[in-house]
Amino acid sequence: MSVSGLNTDFYELTMMQGFFLAKHNPGVVFDMFYRTNPFNGGYAVFTGLNDLLDKLEDFTFSDDDIAYLASLKKFKPEFLEFLASYHFSGSIHAMDEGTMVFPGEPLVRVHTSLIDALLIETFLLNTLNFQTLIATKAARMSLAASGGPIMEFGYRRAQGIDGALSASRASFIGGTSSTSNTLAGMKYGIPVAGTMAHSWVMSFSDELEAFREFARLYPDNAILLIDTYDTLGSGIENALIVGKELKKKNLSFGVRIDSGDLNYLSRAIRKRLDEAGLEDARIIVSNDITEDIIQTLVHDKVPIDSWGIGTHLVTGGTQSSLNGVYKLCSKQDTFGQYIPTLKVSNSYEKTTLPGIKQVWRFSNETEGALADLVTLEDETPENGCDHTFFHPFTEMDFFVMKAKNYTSAVPLLSCKMKDGKKVGVSPSLTEVQDFARKSLDGFHASYKRLINPHIYKVSLSRKLKDLKTELIMRVKKGDA
Amino acid sequence: MSVSGLNTDFYELTMMQGFFLAKHNPGVVFDMFYRTNPFNGGYAVFTGLNDLLDKLEDFTFSDDDIAYLASLKKFKPEFLEFLASYHFSGSIHAMDEGTMVFPGEPLVRVHTSLIDALLIETFLLNTLNFQTLIATKAARMSLAASGGPIMEFGYRRAQGIDGALSASRASFIGGTSSTSNTLAGMKYGIPVAGTMAHSWVMSFSDELEAFREFARLYPDNAILLIDTYDTLGSGIENALIVGKELKKKNLSFGVRIDSGDLNYLSRAIRKRLDEAGLEDARIIVSNDITEDIIQTLVHDKVPIDSWGIGTHLVTGGTQSSLNGVYKLCSKQDTFGQYIPTLKVSNSYEKTTLPGIKQVWRFSNETEGALADLVTLEDETPENGCDHTFFHPFTEMDFFVMKAKNYTSAVPLLSCKMKDGKKVGVSPSLTEVQDFARKSLDGFHASYKRLINPHIYKVSLSRKLKDLKTELIMRVKKGDA
Repeated sequence: MSVSGLNTDFYELTMMQGFFLAKHNPGVVFDMFYRTNPFNGGYAVFTGLNDLLDKLEDFTFSDDDIAYLASLKKFKPEFLEFLASYHFSGSIHAMDEGTMVFPGEPLVRVHTSLIDALLIETFLLNTLNFQTLIATKAARMSLAASGGPIMEFGYRRAQGIDGALSASRASFIGGTSSTSNTLAGMKYGIPVAGTMAHSWVMSFSDELEAFREFARLYPDNAILLIDTYDTLGSGIENALIVGKELKKKNLSFGVRIDSGDLNYLSRAIRKRLDEAGLEDARIIVSNDITEDIIQTLVHDKVPIDSWGIGTHLVTGGTQSSLNGVYKLCSKQDTFGQYIPTLKVSNSYEKTTLPGIKQVWRFSNETEGALADLVTLEDETPENGCDHTFFHPFTEMDFFVMKAKNYTSAVPLLSCKMKDGKKVGVSPSLTEVQDFARKSLDGFHASYKRLINPHIYKVSLSRKLKDLKTELIMRVKKGDA
Repeated sequence: MSVSGLNTDFYELTMMQGFFLAKHNPGVVFDMFYRTNPFNGGYAVFTGLNDLLDKLEDFTFSDDDIAYLASLKKFKPEFLEFLASYHFSGSIHAMDEGTMVFPGEPLVRVHTSLIDALLIETFLLNTLNFQTLIATKAARMSLAASGGPIMEFGYRRAQGIDGALSASRASFIGGTSSTSNTLAGMKYGIPVAGTMAHSWVMSFSDELEAFREFARLYPDNAILLIDTYDTLGSGIENALIVGKELKKKNLSFGVRIDSGDLNYLSRAIRKRLDEAGLEDARIIVSNDITEDIIQTLVHDKVPIDSWGIGTHLVTGGTQSSLNGVYKLCSKQDTFGQYIPTLKVSNSYEKTTLPGIKQVWRFSNETEGALADLVTLEDETPENGCDHTFFHPFTEMDFFVMKAKNYTSAVPLLSCKMKDGKKVGVSPSLTEVQDFARKSLDGFHASYKRLINPHIYKVSLSRKLKDLKTELIMRVKKGDA
């Protein structure tokens, strides 16, 4: 899975050359984090990491790439030579892929040289922003569907080939059961699934023949699309004929409805199927389904067995991006010491957290996760002690996590890549999906509500808060 | 630019096998069209065609692809053999890439065998839906910016590698001037551009040194990012020092503002620049800019010289997909005759247009484009005659296009691919961009308004309307 080093914003390359020619290439640490939860929700599902790591191992410049850069007349030969033999050689600490995460906490920490860190910024953000967005959407839809399986059908409305491919991967991690994207099946081992199109039905001289032929070919998976001509007329009537023929052979079947009022039609179809003795027959619905539509149909107890979802799943629908950013938090000084740094913004919420950090998730056995504490890396919140949790933005707002209220405090960031090589064996996609489900299960339902969720607390340790305040003071005084 | 044949929805493959085994592979014609204008607007810019044609020429199955399909145990060896030697061999009529287009009119017509037509559906829709969406967004933003150049900065928030790459291509066609995506620069010849990041500034011991070093390295393109610490404090002060140094060498420069109130800050910065005698210095703004933000800033005459736009351009923002579809309109009967067909929907608006069709754009020299007429392919609206334009949905609603009111009626669909090979030489991306601008210029501004645009009329010829009515009657009577 080689990826061209040209997958980067052009300014990264011009900045890199600047540092390269100035021989200014200190060690640095960058954090990746996001600022607000997608979909007005309460969380995100951190996704894309293993895909990113695989690709970073082979992020290089081909001869054609170098020739293109040379043609721009902006780069010196010595810098192009450096790129020609470039390999990412940094180390990456990150949360496990599939972890339920929150705004402001570092999800990834990149330790490398400044030049190295710049090159991968764009690609890292693209991968993690998009896949995290889509896994979160899939998790929300899966929760709304209360476990009813979701087939991801999004390729034709996705944003480009890879917009489809990586959306299929992320959707599966977030909880979908299969994809229509055959390439995603091959690349990621996701189960592929599909039914039939209107064009199948229209290609036969009549609908019954179309249904019969399909059932003959695919007797184990005869999902008949019944809305090509008249759902409650010929559609269900012909489906019942074929369904009864299959039942005689002890084969079950299903119908798909892709237009009209899904509530009304599903109930009417269920009634017809049951009256015909086809209680086993499944009803699959599709047609521009959103999380709100799922929630309403499930709330109304509409008899739907599974969902085919495309557009609003694989593109995020009304929110099409996650606002993840990648910010310098520490750099080596001329003595080789790592010095914490931050970007001060006119809005305090956008001022970044300085220093090399860790995130600790506090939880207990009855309530699950309670709050996350962002600390400096050399702090270890001692178990069995009280800890003060400071609000990330509001000065003097804090609470005390009492020793009696939590039973564990677990660090979430661990080393995933060392000197450009992955650490350990990558989990399979099914393992990541399982992990994501467990991570989600570890939180009270109120945090996972589609609208007006409870806000999960991400706090700062005293040491981190004090460091931030001190650095802001220095910048404001002009001593930065 | 080889593309794996696995870039298809799985059901296409299972349906294909069905037809293959049944030796049912008649000639068919499919239309691609979309149903509603994106962004509540009045039009779309048809984009993606040349990219699609390039890729269709090399849409094949590798040995690995075939091995994967075999592993699913759903496909017969003879069908897999067929796929192993598959090449798309159909013909494609389409509008020129960059044409301003409207809901309901066929943008692409695919003439091929049924099996061929199914395989390419997913990939064709993915490419055209996404690129048309983004080119339309870029055109809207360009019109809002009243010609102020837009740099596309979207890679880090785009939907995957190709979500970024093809968005850069489509944005450029829609009117942006450059991209930050280096790969898009190489693949499509789009000018690459960029400024500096906050991390550049933070990597120096002070801001002035960071600005000076950048100007020394890139004296022709010194765009200084002034909001790392304090935009109206150290940011502009240090930029003025460097700007004056550059002016002494007859070099111009610019500043970028990436946070805060862009209206207030741009005015204040402009004043400071002018007072310092740096009237040539450009102001570039960025930070989550939408078309509404552009329109408001331009309306308020804020002194902004160019725009850096990412997220809302390359993902479509609040609308992340175009609802383009691909529908069977004609198929060969057992005698080899092409018979018009349609899909009847419970909603009349979703009933498709039958038969092999052409689209004629009527215009005159003073008003530009007047209306489009969809006809059957064997109709040629005679110039100098009156023509009746029938409403596509409302029975008995029509108007007469008087001979004296139009000066030309031009067919928009022409042959772009013949038997799997592109016809003629593909236009360069700059030529497509020019064509798109001319196409947009051919319409009155009222059709291009961001909100509440005038509705451009797409009508049916009498012959097409009568055919549609007749076929609906037949279906409803059960004779389809």
